[in-house]
Amino acid sequence: MNEFDLVLPTAVDVREVGMRDGLQLEDPLPLAAKLQMLEALVATGVRRIEVTSFVSPRAVPALADADQLAAELHQFDGVHFSALVANPRGAVRAVDAGLTSLEYVVSASDSHSRANAGRPTAAAVAAVGEIAELAHGAGGSLEVIVATAWDCPFEGRTPIARTVDVTRAAVTAGADHLCLGDTIGTTTPVRVVRLLDAVRRASPGTPLGVHFHDTRGTGQANALAALQAGVTQLDASVGGLGGCPFAPGASGNIATEELVYWLADAEVATGIDLDALLAAASVTERAVGHELPSSLHRAGGRNAPRGVVMGSVV
Amino acid sequence: MNEFDLVLPTAVDVREVGMRDGLQLEDPLPLAAKLQMLEALVATGVRRIEVTSFVSPRAVPALADADQLAAELHQFDGVHFSALVANPRGAVRAVDAGLTSLEYVVSASDSHSRANAGRPTAAAVAAVGEIAELAHGAGGSLEVIVATAWDCPFEGRTPIARTVDVTRAAVTAGADHLCLGDTIGTTTPVRVVRLLDAVRRASPGTPLGVHFHDTRGTGQANALAALQAGVTQLDASVGGLGGCPFAPGASGNIATEELVYWLADAEVATGIDLDALLAAASVTERAVGHELPSSLHRAGGRNAPRGVVMGSVV
Repeated sequence: MNEFDLVLPTAVDVREVGMRDGLQLEDPLPLAAKLQMLEALVATGVRRIEVTSFVSPRAVPALADADQLAAELHQFDGVHFSALVANPRGAVRAVDAGLTSLEYVVSASDSHSRANAGRPTAAAVAAVGEIAELAHGAGGSLEVIVATAWDCPFEGRTPIARTVDVTRAAVTAGADHLCLGDTIGTTTPVRVVRLLDAVRRASPGTPLGVHFHDTRGTGQANALAALQAGVTQLDASVGGLGGCPFAPGASGNIATEELVYWLADAEVATGIDLDALLAAASVTERAVGHELPSSLHRAGGRNAPRGVVMGSVV
Repeated sequence: MNEFDLVLPTAVDVREVGMRDGLQLEDPLPLAAKLQMLEALVATGVRRIEVTSFVSPRAVPALADADQLAAELHQFDGVHFSALVANPRGAVRAVDAGLTSLEYVVSASDSHSRANAGRPTAAAVAAVGEIAELAHGAGGSLEVIVATAWDCPFEGRTPIARTVDVTRAAVTAGADHLCLGDTIGTTTPVRVVRLLDAVRRASPGTPLGVHFHDTRGTGQANALAALQAGVTQLDASVGGLGGCPFAPGASGNIATEELVYWLADAEVATGIDLDALLAAASVTERAVGHELPSSLHRAGGRNAPRGVVMGSVV
């Protein structure tokens, strides 16, 4: 047999999404608790944080304090903050609040787009240009995140060509970055690399990230596959926060600490300190008041407690 | 960018270890419940099942019925059953019970070997020859499973050279197969492929499997890495059963259904039916009387319930 080693990037740019995707379905936290969580996250060394959404407070009460939170971000140096918006009105709010790195979600499947945003995919794509102009006008940028990029909870598998069409249209309309979202946590490594390849071929110059949920245990394997395919921008959530209240026990986003844990062993630089991240997970767990999905956090971190295998054979 | 695809084997030989590694720390089940679980597992199409251990009933009360269980295996056609033994006395018991595919565990680290088997590694290795003879004399085979192959809960990282020495000595003494065990669930993809490479180089002709625990969320990523390194023999446990009672919430073995789930998408043949496997996980869950760690099982399988993402944005 020949020597084999995994080919991975030398550095990865992790975006912490626990403040947004993680908290959006939780009971609303007081602003002080969010700032404590944010402080703990900034202390990890993470350089990109998706900090909130500018969306309807009725739809997402947990993020109704987006403007107040944005007003506090000047406290945190050296971190690139971004915010999610659902339409041009949200983009105006975000820019007015000083957040100019915008993310806008478009669902690749019509059924999900209707359920999530109240309009079909084409109508959602049609707003990209206006949101991009708002971002660019403020000196910022726009990332289009394609939801249901692999699978839709209503329609099943999303054809690769469909997702590619949405990404191509988004770039044509002014998107600076793309991100593919495995919204319901169903994709798997080989499907990951095939879609990434197709999207990259269609928009070769556009930075491309991935957003995985670990709902079926394949989240970190999907991340590994994406890195092997050359992706260096990954979303992850402290503690794996982001579970859906309609699926108790189901995991949320891939856990940032699990990602950083294996990347450190692979000598892939993230700039993130694992111990600080585990501490941030504990802060987050206290804030939300329930156990987080992350296995690494539940296992108590890198080292097994002494004697943990007594009585166990392998 | 160039086209990229994951290079994986066309087929993988999964060994279901839920009956042994999964049950060994549970409260003892009645024989009838084990047979029900076994029947459900056989119905999945899995071709290799590690069915029990012939060890001290005081040390592992849950597997005290090894002889009785072995006497029932004639009911199940077309499945290759194996059993774990801890010493030559256990090997004699297994062979007398009609099980001749033996597995013998040697810990690569002395501290774990002493804690788990009451003797240092060298003394454990010294028994390989006698156990191999017993297996071969009965027309069977011996697999040596190296525990703490990557990490030891007492000593930390196991030097690669140490694990390689143990595997080489085992093969010299008569082992027909090797398996590397991530006993405490700490290894990560790059460490996986590096150790596999070193062991294969030392024992190029000997079949080599892997035994991962998903304690820190990297289990399926480790499996992906191992497959890319050319491994085709993987241990996995239905429902991810095998958690340690000293680490509540920690996951056990990698879940067979999560492995089969992504392998199916990758068109890697396993011969295992996913729906039958999820049914077997439900049978197992009822038998042990508590929730299983498998995320896929908890998520209800392949498809998300309709509407699961209502209110969620990505």
